Amino acid sequence: MKKIIECVPNFSEGRDLEKIEKIVNPFRGKDNVKLLDYKRDEDHNRVVVTVVGEPDAVKEAVIEAIGVAVEVIDLRNHSGQHPRMGAVDVVPFIPIKNISMTEAVELSKEVAKIVSEKYNLPVFLYEKSASSPDRENLANIRKGEFEGMFEKIKQPQWKPDFGIAEVHPTAGVVAIGARMPLVAFNVNLNTNNIEIANKIAKNVRFIGGGLRYCKAIGVELKDRGIVQVSMNMTDYTKTALYRAFELIKIEAKRYGVSVAGSEIIGLVPMEALIDTAVYYLGIEDFSMEQILETRIME
Amino acid sequence: MKKIIECVPNFSEGRDLEKIEKIVNPFRGKDNVKLLDYKRDEDHNRVVVTVVGEPDAVKEAVIEAIGVAVEVIDLRNHSGQHPRMGAVDVVPFIPIKNISMTEAVELSKEVAKIVSEKYNLPVFLYEKSASSPDRENLANIRKGEFEGMFEKIKQPQWKPDFGIAEVHPTAGVVAIGARMPLVAFNVNLNTNNIEIANKIAKNVRFIGGGLRYCKAIGVELKDRGIVQVSMNMTDYTKTALYRAFELIKIEAKRYGVSVAGSEIIGLVPMEALIDTAVYYLGIEDFSMEQILETRIME
Repeated sequence: MKKIIECVPNFSEGRDLEKIEKIVNPFRGKDNVKLLDYKRDEDHNRVVVTVVGEPDAVKEAVIEAIGVAVEVIDLRNHSGQHPRMGAVDVVPFIPIKNISMTEAVELSKEVAKIVSEKYNLPVFLYEKSASSPDRENLANIRKGEFEGMFEKIKQPQWKPDFGIAEVHPTAGVVAIGARMPLVAFNVNLNTNNIEIANKIAKNVRFIGGGLRYCKAIGVELKDRGIVQVSMNMTDYTKTALYRAFELIKIEAKRYGVSVAGSEIIGLVPMEALIDTAVYYLGIEDFSMEQILETRIME
Repeated sequence: MKKIIECVPNFSEGRDLEKIEKIVNPFRGKDNVKLLDYKRDEDHNRVVVTVVGEPDAVKEAVIEAIGVAVEVIDLRNHSGQHPRMGAVDVVPFIPIKNISMTEAVELSKEVAKIVSEKYNLPVFLYEKSASSPDRENLANIRKGEFEGMFEKIKQPQWKPDFGIAEVHPTAGVVAIGARMPLVAFNVNLNTNNIEIANKIAKNVRFIGGGLRYCKAIGVELKDRGIVQVSMNMTDYTKTALYRAFELIKIEAKRYGVSVAGSEIIGLVPMEALIDTAVYYLGIEDFSMEQILETRIME
């Protein structure tokens, strides 16, 4: 059975199309590597690439693309709305099929070692690959961004996991790690009161005492005159989508507000929605093996 | 993009393992053909084979297996609980991926023509391939079974679609056609009163004035002391699973009974459950393209 891993590297270039094509090019025309998507954002000055494939093939392509990005991006001249600490800002590996999280972590460390040596790039391991709890969260590592990293990296607790404690002069540093697939799941409320969305977000998210694998903020949808609880579900196998949805419904009642619907942004693993259907229909003893498509894909 | 069709031929042999293996053998070790399952039932004296693959490859394998079944099964000595009219009783083709119903109908007719000529087997086209409305329903065609077919086939309205109007002396006749995937979906009720299950089944099923693509009967689960509405959803793209489920909940209220859960027997297309999740979460503008696995399978 074929192993499939996903990689979603974020590069700090969202404006220069020629450079972007050069960076994306290593993901094209390769056996066992499939470029699913790349989305650039001019305001963020960043491009997010989504690629899937066989682990070794994806690894080689990612290493090649990192090399190109280090060469063509100069962070000394970079500005954008999105925080960034490197030409290659972050490289998450996500186990998709017939591959364990342990294997994904292993793969992330192999890539980390190689790029640190090959391109003189200090690497911080993050998420499931993190070497300590304070490095699990990318925001902690990135705090201070490229400009602040030259000082930060000298502190003993911010010694990189691979490479020497010296920021690459033009490419900065990079975070590499393995994580679960994210699901961007937003629940709309029948109100234009952003305070209500903020309060509900605070209650359902992990840091507010809510669900373990849920990040949430309140967002205004000005066009529609409503607000939403915008969530990142960071492990749908442990914090189910329907659980967040039902909790938001319950919380919304406090404010006399109802749920208007929801949206999923981008890709979602099949199992996250199958699990939701199984819950609402109360299907007993259901197995993913019963999904026709999983039998065909084997 | 690879076309994938499913075929679920039913053969009238459920006891003689040697004969069954001979019949199933053409589905093994072939390129682009995958034997997913075969389930024999001694009481029914019948084996149901599930195979998927590339249309031409599946077609060739099915024709070969039909030939074997005609050779090894003698219906003159056949008895079992399940109604049957042929050594090969029924051969449904089900479009699964990148293939239209029209193409599946076309394929079923090609197979029908070949087996009628090659094996002297009269063929009735049924379901979406039917040449008239009274041939859509398999039960209509099969009425009278093997023993009654010798007379029935002489009636002008029961002239076969392929082959001469003469029943094969040992292999009878066969129904071949294209249909949507069936979903076997059962909803359990918190009561042991079979009358209630029967009444609800009658109300939700098509022939009772209920949902267009729903067949239903009441069934007792004696071990558990409860009853269930046992359904065959014959087109989940038009009659959604959640609709049948919610209707049963509504009907159950009349009898002061609640729904205890449900079950799905055998395989189910991913989309049938994704659609259900999208309904309950109220996801706006969802596209099957957002399912990660569909992007990998392309």
